[in-house]
Amino acid sequence: MIITHQELHRFISDVFEKKGMSHEHAVICADVLSFADLRGIDSHGVARLSGYLRLIDSGRINVNPNIKFERRKKTQIRVNADGAIGLVSAHLAMQECINITHDYGTAWAGIYNSNHFGVAAHHAIQGFSHNFIGFAMTNASPLVVPANGVERMLGTNPICVAIPGKNGKSFILDMATSTAANGKLEIAQRQKKEIPNGWAVDALGNSSTDPHVLGQKGALLPLGSDAEHGFHKGYGLSAWVDIFSAVLPGASWGPWAPPFVSFLQPKAEAPGKGLGHFVGCWDMEGFNDVSEIHDQLDDWMTRFKASSPLENHEVLIPGEPEARIQASRIENGIPIVEEVWRDLMNISVELNVTLK
Amino acid sequence: MIITHQELHRFISDVFEKKGMSHEHAVICADVLSFADLRGIDSHGVARLSGYLRLIDSGRINVNPNIKFERRKKTQIRVNADGAIGLVSAHLAMQECINITHDYGTAWAGIYNSNHFGVAAHHAIQGFSHNFIGFAMTNASPLVVPANGVERMLGTNPICVAIPGKNGKSFILDMATSTAANGKLEIAQRQKKEIPNGWAVDALGNSSTDPHVLGQKGALLPLGSDAEHGFHKGYGLSAWVDIFSAVLPGASWGPWAPPFVSFLQPKAEAPGKGLGHFVGCWDMEGFNDVSEIHDQLDDWMTRFKASSPLENHEVLIPGEPEARIQASRIENGIPIVEEVWRDLMNISVELNVTLK
Repeated sequence: MIITHQELHRFISDVFEKKGMSHEHAVICADVLSFADLRGIDSHGVARLSGYLRLIDSGRINVNPNIKFERRKKTQIRVNADGAIGLVSAHLAMQECINITHDYGTAWAGIYNSNHFGVAAHHAIQGFSHNFIGFAMTNASPLVVPANGVERMLGTNPICVAIPGKNGKSFILDMATSTAANGKLEIAQRQKKEIPNGWAVDALGNSSTDPHVLGQKGALLPLGSDAEHGFHKGYGLSAWVDIFSAVLPGASWGPWAPPFVSFLQPKAEAPGKGLGHFVGCWDMEGFNDVSEIHDQLDDWMTRFKASSPLENHEVLIPGEPEARIQASRIENGIPIVEEVWRDLMNISVELNVTLK
Repeated sequence: MIITHQELHRFISDVFEKKGMSHEHAVICADVLSFADLRGIDSHGVARLSGYLRLIDSGRINVNPNIKFERRKKTQIRVNADGAIGLVSAHLAMQECINITHDYGTAWAGIYNSNHFGVAAHHAIQGFSHNFIGFAMTNASPLVVPANGVERMLGTNPICVAIPGKNGKSFILDMATSTAANGKLEIAQRQKKEIPNGWAVDALGNSSTDPHVLGQKGALLPLGSDAEHGFHKGYGLSAWVDIFSAVLPGASWGPWAPPFVSFLQPKAEAPGKGLGHFVGCWDMEGFNDVSEIHDQLDDWMTRFKASSPLENHEVLIPGEPEARIQASRIENGIPIVEEVWRDLMNISVELNVTLK
């Protein structure tokens, strides 16, 4: 099935409103999810809609949150999301950071008592029209071992840095800190293929090529994959994300990060509340004239694009593959896989929301 | 040879003073270099002293810089290092960030027209006594290929995040964004061993196990090592560092980043001035009460340390290996390899600076 991004946006927004969310919040959710689908990050788009709805039904997502912003320093806020969906709490926290950045040059928010925040890049690019560089991280359900460990202690904990360029040519790095994300294992499952060594380990910590290993108490490996190839660095990055997103504002960290799926209960005796995020921005103008930075950044991209590639390969700028998919999907619509489409049809019937 | 850190510090400081540096700047240099040796990061300590001196002799390091701080926004500064040694310019820029953070909660500096800044962690921990979280990056001589590329376009561009904990138990992530740093290839050369696949490529981009490959127009690989194991992520991180450190403030980026060794001239038609750094800090208190964060961070470390390890392994906290070496070397002194010691003896004789 192919759907236009406008129609997908309308559907998602209507669904969240039907579940009791305000129009304003529902539109934010639709913005973030349809953006992921437009950019080809299908694992973080409408494919997750039914998952969010189940979290609403189970009471873990609060559709009418009283989100509280505690301005602790001139450029720093602590945000109690009151159980909000992270799509909304991270967006509103970033909006507050943008407001503060106009006055001070930078601003930062630690958010706790939240839920899954979708694709990090949508929050990080939020200040692009003001030439603000964006930053976003979140902790996530524990699936990843520490370096030298065999226990699931960390999520795929993404880091996103988004630097606005001229003529819409921006630098958008949005990466999980594990070698491979969950979605890549699911693709291998569907294709009945083995996964490469270095992606995952079994319950004893041995490298595994079984794409079903996560269902057998296995775990993902941090970026770097093994000691020889620097997996202490991937672990360190993931740990940084966990501490900034959860330890600082008071969310549940490490193995206590709440699972995305509603059929798993969050672990007892959690050290904090809900998931946590960390977002913020810098005014580009604070480091040099924006026009000068834009020219340099454009030259930087041109030089990197022109550097010698491996045979039959191309050197890409972070965010470039997604920008290409976005251009194509704006024009040609968004393909939805059959399994997800059935999910959306069920939601459409159940909530009586039109889906064309 | 074994030397106490006090004696090493005194020697380094005296040497830089003899080269015409102010006492204040010479002491900063000695602080940063002896800190690296104390922490076991021998590649960034006194082993580099003769390299810095050659850069002074060749006129590329200015020992009497007029470092200019341009406060462009309340929390942002652009720093023209005037050719200073990076050990000093990054330190002074961070000091300015610390001063501003007392008033505003955060502050950030982009530094250009600078030189090699030593070990990133020393700059990042500078605000620890105020419970400020520190951040430091620098670009560096091009040695690393982009993902899918065969040309040296990036340095080993480190990222450092330092989070002060209680009782001196802090989180210090200080990592090169390449899979392996140069120093690891030099160790393999001395041991006449092959290096693992995934560290380096030859001039054509083929994986190489020759530890001498960098001398044969080869290059290092970004963290992740290959497409299957996510080297676009290591490339993305390294590119982020290059853009923040150099493109933003106006230093020379990518393949134009000036080489550390004085016998190589910086490339002509550089897009900016000198090397660049990016440093800054956040007041921990801006995200929650420091005592609460300290307790949570301590619990976080305890839980991670207690997580199940691989057989005969141990789960470590980022910065823990260095902290152990530091404790030992404060007590037992710093071992200096013969080659470096000869270097120091030559400097001692040439500049008439005592070395005990």
